[in-house]
Amino acid sequence: MNAEIISIGTELLMGELVDTNSSFLASELAKIGVEVRWVTKVGDDPKLLREVIERAWKRSDITLTSGGLGPTSDDLTRESIAAAFGEEMAVQDDLLEHLKGLFVNRGFPMPETNIKQATLIPSAQTVPNDHGTAPGWWAEKDGHVIVAMPGPPREILPMWTSTIGPKIKARNPDVAIVTRNLKTFGISEGGLDEMLSPLFQSKNPYLGIYSKQDGIHLRAIATAPTDAEAWELIRPMETEIRRVIGEDVVWGTDDDTPESLAASLLQAKGFTLGIMESFTGGLLASNLADVEGSRHFLKGSAVVYRDDLLEGHGVDPKLIEEYGPINAHVAEDMARAARKLFDADVGLAITGLVADPTDASGPVGTSHIGFAIGDSVSSTSGHYPTSRLRLRSRASTHALLGLVRFLNGLPPQSLSMRR
Amino acid sequence: MNAEIISIGTELLMGELVDTNSSFLASELAKIGVEVRWVTKVGDDPKLLREVIERAWKRSDITLTSGGLGPTSDDLTRESIAAAFGEEMAVQDDLLEHLKGLFVNRGFPMPETNIKQATLIPSAQTVPNDHGTAPGWWAEKDGHVIVAMPGPPREILPMWTSTIGPKIKARNPDVAIVTRNLKTFGISEGGLDEMLSPLFQSKNPYLGIYSKQDGIHLRAIATAPTDAEAWELIRPMETEIRRVIGEDVVWGTDDDTPESLAASLLQAKGFTLGIMESFTGGLLASNLADVEGSRHFLKGSAVVYRDDLLEGHGVDPKLIEEYGPINAHVAEDMARAARKLFDADVGLAITGLVADPTDASGPVGTSHIGFAIGDSVSSTSGHYPTSRLRLRSRASTHALLGLVRFLNGLPPQSLSMRR
Repeated sequence: MNAEIISIGTELLMGELVDTNSSFLASELAKIGVEVRWVTKVGDDPKLLREVIERAWKRSDITLTSGGLGPTSDDLTRESIAAAFGEEMAVQDDLLEHLKGLFVNRGFPMPETNIKQATLIPSAQTVPNDHGTAPGWWAEKDGHVIVAMPGPPREILPMWTSTIGPKIKARNPDVAIVTRNLKTFGISEGGLDEMLSPLFQSKNPYLGIYSKQDGIHLRAIATAPTDAEAWELIRPMETEIRRVIGEDVVWGTDDDTPESLAASLLQAKGFTLGIMESFTGGLLASNLADVEGSRHFLKGSAVVYRDDLLEGHGVDPKLIEEYGPINAHVAEDMARAARKLFDADVGLAITGLVADPTDASGPVGTSHIGFAIGDSVSSTSGHYPTSRLRLRSRASTHALLGLVRFLNGLPPQSLSMRR
Repeated sequence: MNAEIISIGTELLMGELVDTNSSFLASELAKIGVEVRWVTKVGDDPKLLREVIERAWKRSDITLTSGGLGPTSDDLTRESIAAAFGEEMAVQDDLLEHLKGLFVNRGFPMPETNIKQATLIPSAQTVPNDHGTAPGWWAEKDGHVIVAMPGPPREILPMWTSTIGPKIKARNPDVAIVTRNLKTFGISEGGLDEMLSPLFQSKNPYLGIYSKQDGIHLRAIATAPTDAEAWELIRPMETEIRRVIGEDVVWGTDDDTPESLAASLLQAKGFTLGIMESFTGGLLASNLADVEGSRHFLKGSAVVYRDDLLEGHGVDPKLIEEYGPINAHVAEDMARAARKLFDADVGLAITGLVADPTDASGPVGTSHIGFAIGDSVSSTSGHYPTSRLRLRSRASTHALLGLVRFLNGLPPQSLSMRR
């Protein structure tokens, strides 16, 4: 079964909006074994829109559109499907009642223009929209389906999950797709590509490699008649990857994030955490604060952006004098001081230089990360030659993955990322 | 002049990669007055790719492709253009020498497969690529142009800026496009839409409204034969917008960000800043740290995530006892304490509750922001009913815009954003 995605709206063609709906739909379709062959963005031009929709309907088993279901004269998706099918739109009494009810709840009468959101053509049925006024359309003619969905992600996502996804899956029951994502840190994309080159030749499972904020991801996708058979294909590949690149390099799988791993481990051990950070400027604390339940383990972070203020936060001035502020000894002492300052079980600290051309006190992109628990301290260093904004993010990932290793009693990895 | 964009690569159809190139190219083309009429994503299938390229070449003045210029057998853009034009690819000696030189610099011999990156067809010339091995193609036949560019953003962006953009602009010299972006905070998207509804009818300048992390943006785009004439169209609209919604609501224009405004003002006044934050968990400091030169004014932030640690950071425990930790008096005292802790001229503080279902000590999404300079303190409050991750970002924006107003001697805005 193949599919085609059409994103509708002139704002997409102006580059004012990045079209995330089509990526979302494409990855969802891949999961249920539907091959996406075309993705098109088209503006609110009636002639072009009708042409694109008609071509899609004829050449694709399933066409998914997003956008153009609003009440204005620029919203032309329904009209274009009706024209392609050669059918007339008619107002449906029950839809109209429902729509008027939505406006009553909002406390004002329905504008006349919204009436077209209550129409159907004979070949279409509506798809409920719990998050907006525009219902979707499921239109089917000559064995080919067009599904029209609204544009806002907060409307299209639940509509896909509750109705459209299961309905399409039911038409394609004999294909199971399983995805396994291995997340790595410490070897560059080029290095992994070389080490795993035989595996990249495989078609099923298919192996992809992606450079992300938190390292390089290796994603295997297998297709089979059942989930169990798809997993049978994936497992040997995962074993082989782990053997070749080393267990140490794989820090997580699937939905794991550096924050979620560090948070789970701290909570499992019943530890609280105090942070002292200069390099990451608050990002390390902010990333952890975004994890649900973070209040239970995160006590705080001292973002100390001036070396002369480290002493006031409990760092030994003699160490700074002897080694300078960007140094493993200082990072370890900062971790110890963070524990004390926030009365926490574990201390985590990071010091280093970001790409600030006005600062000449050391190599840019180098950080030292310190860990402290009880009387035990440890540290690691990293060098991340990338842009200013990504530097902090790389360093935060490095610190959190280092913390996980430290708490598990493993030696931290020192990193010099090539990209 | 119209254009079409084709993004090439099976990974795009799997939803594994969000296609940012097409949005970038679309917004760049809009700036030079070229209308984008279609955007298509297509996989590495030779038949489909050729069909898509041939249709684009015939129907569009300019077709821009990204991706498919690599050395592997899946990289088929050159082959598809050659097939559409009915021409043969031939290796160019000078290109081959250059390519071999790139590999010499990298320290290993050129793999045989890369040879196709040194080919041309008679109707094409190369476009230099300073950031990769694949040169672009500028192919022109029957008055229609196809420009083939590499997929990686770090290659396509400089190639656009240095060569392709100016070359296309030169073919379309009599159109000037001017964009003016007014950034607002404090009125919901629906409210602005209603207040400005007559202006939204205008075609030139065209007015768009966009909900962003830092508030609602109003963007006017005017087209005219010259820049000066386009500005003549924009100015009265800007004046009218400011009159209708109020100068207070417009906090910035074009490339302004809350961080950049706060940073410029602090630097202009020669002030240093200390922060104390709970609600934003380090995000406020992190956002400011991302501004170049932040080391000159940002002294640090105390991210205090537990109320019982506020006292240790210099906040008066009697205030917390009397009012609770989430309160305007506490926010003001935190700002005063932040000034002192970091020995800074200005103190900024934020306290509040994020959407943590495990915490029941007050209304979720409410924050209090404190400002301190010398003996003067001030505060404001905000309520942002949105998702956990966006809450912090809204609050950081509110705090930074509040700081700008405070430093300018204006009363802070209390906010209750509807969305």
